[in-house]
Amino acid sequence: MKNAGQFAKAVRRYVLLGALAAVTLATAGITKADRLALKDQGSFFVGGRSIFTDALTGTPTGFLGFGINTGNITVDQMYVQYQVPERGDKHVPVVMVHGCCLSSKSYETTPDGRMGWNEYFLRKQRAVYLPDQVSRARSGFDATIYNEIRLGTRPAADMPAIRTASHEFAWPFFRFGPTMGTAFPNEQFPVEAFDEFGKQVIPDLNAELPAVNPTWTNLSALAVKLKGAILMGHSESGFFPEQAALIDPAGIKGMITIEVGCPTTLTSQQISTLARIPILVIFGDHLADVPAYAERWMTTFSSCEQFIQQVNAAGGDAAMMHLPKFGQFGNSHMLMQDKNNLQVADLVLKWIDGHVESKKKSSTGPR
Amino acid sequence: MKNAGQFAKAVRRYVLLGALAAVTLATAGITKADRLALKDQGSFFVGGRSIFTDALTGTPTGFLGFGINTGNITVDQMYVQYQVPERGDKHVPVVMVHGCCLSSKSYETTPDGRMGWNEYFLRKQRAVYLPDQVSRARSGFDATIYNEIRLGTRPAADMPAIRTASHEFAWPFFRFGPTMGTAFPNEQFPVEAFDEFGKQVIPDLNAELPAVNPTWTNLSALAVKLKGAILMGHSESGFFPEQAALIDPAGIKGMITIEVGCPTTLTSQQISTLARIPILVIFGDHLADVPAYAERWMTTFSSCEQFIQQVNAAGGDAAMMHLPKFGQFGNSHMLMQDKNNLQVADLVLKWIDGHVESKKKSSTGPR
Repeated sequence: MKNAGQFAKAVRRYVLLGALAAVTLATAGITKADRLALKDQGSFFVGGRSIFTDALTGTPTGFLGFGINTGNITVDQMYVQYQVPERGDKHVPVVMVHGCCLSSKSYETTPDGRMGWNEYFLRKQRAVYLPDQVSRARSGFDATIYNEIRLGTRPAADMPAIRTASHEFAWPFFRFGPTMGTAFPNEQFPVEAFDEFGKQVIPDLNAELPAVNPTWTNLSALAVKLKGAILMGHSESGFFPEQAALIDPAGIKGMITIEVGCPTTLTSQQISTLARIPILVIFGDHLADVPAYAERWMTTFSSCEQFIQQVNAAGGDAAMMHLPKFGQFGNSHMLMQDKNNLQVADLVLKWIDGHVESKKKSSTGPR
Repeated sequence: MKNAGQFAKAVRRYVLLGALAAVTLATAGITKADRLALKDQGSFFVGGRSIFTDALTGTPTGFLGFGINTGNITVDQMYVQYQVPERGDKHVPVVMVHGCCLSSKSYETTPDGRMGWNEYFLRKQRAVYLPDQVSRARSGFDATIYNEIRLGTRPAADMPAIRTASHEFAWPFFRFGPTMGTAFPNEQFPVEAFDEFGKQVIPDLNAELPAVNPTWTNLSALAVKLKGAILMGHSESGFFPEQAALIDPAGIKGMITIEVGCPTTLTSQQISTLARIPILVIFGDHLADVPAYAERWMTTFSSCEQFIQQVNAAGGDAAMMHLPKFGQFGNSHMLMQDKNNLQVADLVLKWIDGHVESKKKSSTGPR
């Protein structure tokens, strides 16, 4: 009975994925020229805690020279910006989390000025939530250690490492092309706007965070607050949806993991928890085509294939969407900004409709 | 003739300001329950330049252990988020810049969940542009010095000071009340949501910027790009509109300076440049009511009164809007988040209509 159910699920998955690959893409119907009608928009914070700091500023005279250099500040909070379209109530909200050295800008207007996934999903009537990771962008970070070092009350060796991606590293590693300045013939990343992409790259202070990243906890709390949400992560945050589910799966209705390695040391208990939620893993093209990073990308890819097998063996609903197998060629690591980003978004939306929305409507499903 | 013109201008100003104070406030007609219709939205960067760094990360093995720790990165770019309402073409866009230790969140949903100025101005059919200051939030910062110190290639003394405001400093200094936890009887700041406000406060790295702050240059370029804009600054950025105009006044159609000291050492040439653009200076209530900071706020206020006199003496159109004189009492330093924030916004919009929009329509005016 259980095996029959798995077989039926596998068949359904195969049929659905085949349908996806064949689907006539509907992106042509949606343009920025159409009015965008919203039911609601705004921003708020999830999480955060008050801590005492003895280095409010890095100067002995403190803030504005008033001599105040100690007090309580808030850390670990996660800033979230959101928009709800006119018919947003009919669908499960989508939370889009950015990767390393980036902010939620990843999902907004592309470097060459086209519509990003946030607006496209909105126009497809999905409420979209854009968090900045804890310790990044509008979420802020804890500056105490840096100021303590400047004040001489702490050794410089205590400073956490800050990460930034150089232009020369990003180009080949993100698979814009084989070497800096050279694109693959079928490259989808808008390389003519690479300078604009470089402006999105900002310092990453995640090394100062504790082992259980507060972003994971905050994402699970956000899903509960939204009474159900699909969590999407990219690159550094690619497995954050699953990490959030391992903390509290209650609000998480679907998980989308884009271009990151999947852990191979999860316990059967953890796999079992994750198997209760539909999972989509997405990879772009040219994984083996940049010699310096081919081994890394192939290892990354196969680790997720293994993860998907484990989840499905535990009765889960996990799928790999390797874009070339779905008719989308030339996609980079920044696939949400690629020239075919809306076609890729359509594939994601079809998966959501088939694996998350359909289950929401049916009360007779396996769960 | 010139004196007569100035007299007429002064009378017009007096009549307009009187009308403002008496106006029946129209905020009741606008609520979040109404659909928000947008013509456009998105984000982009202004400015930015490529520099070489020898400390891409703070670890000798570099990014992801690939041994790469040098390369080019982009710095001094300014992230700008924007929305254009359905009839946004009819009005001059408004650029809202945040203050110290804050991000553009200042102008979004208030700490207690009400509509912020960005959405209210949108609903009043103004295009709104929200930059994050250079070296803050989604604009990123240059992490080179920090990483060099960690790598031991630079002394800790070279580190620029980072500023953060503690809860205990912000409460009285921002005039939420006389002492931490105690509000003024007529306090307009939503002190019950003070914890949420604390989450907006993030580290300020402006001390690492050059003397001519790239945000000023970027703001003047943004105004030109928009073919005319009103620049609004608050607190740390309160005088940024004027600083941008002193770099290039071409695109700046109006300047709104909120709660900051005005420089008293401007040359007559500089005053003359600023006198070509309408200027509104805004202060809230209780300037003299927190003993520890009363002298500072009163000095701040009088420096702007002096600035306004200088500008008007040079033929300009500058006005002080001290809110208690306009029927709004109990406003804090964070007046765009106060409970009467939409009433204050109405006063600002009336000033814009009378001093910026009216001049745009007339080709027979003095300029």
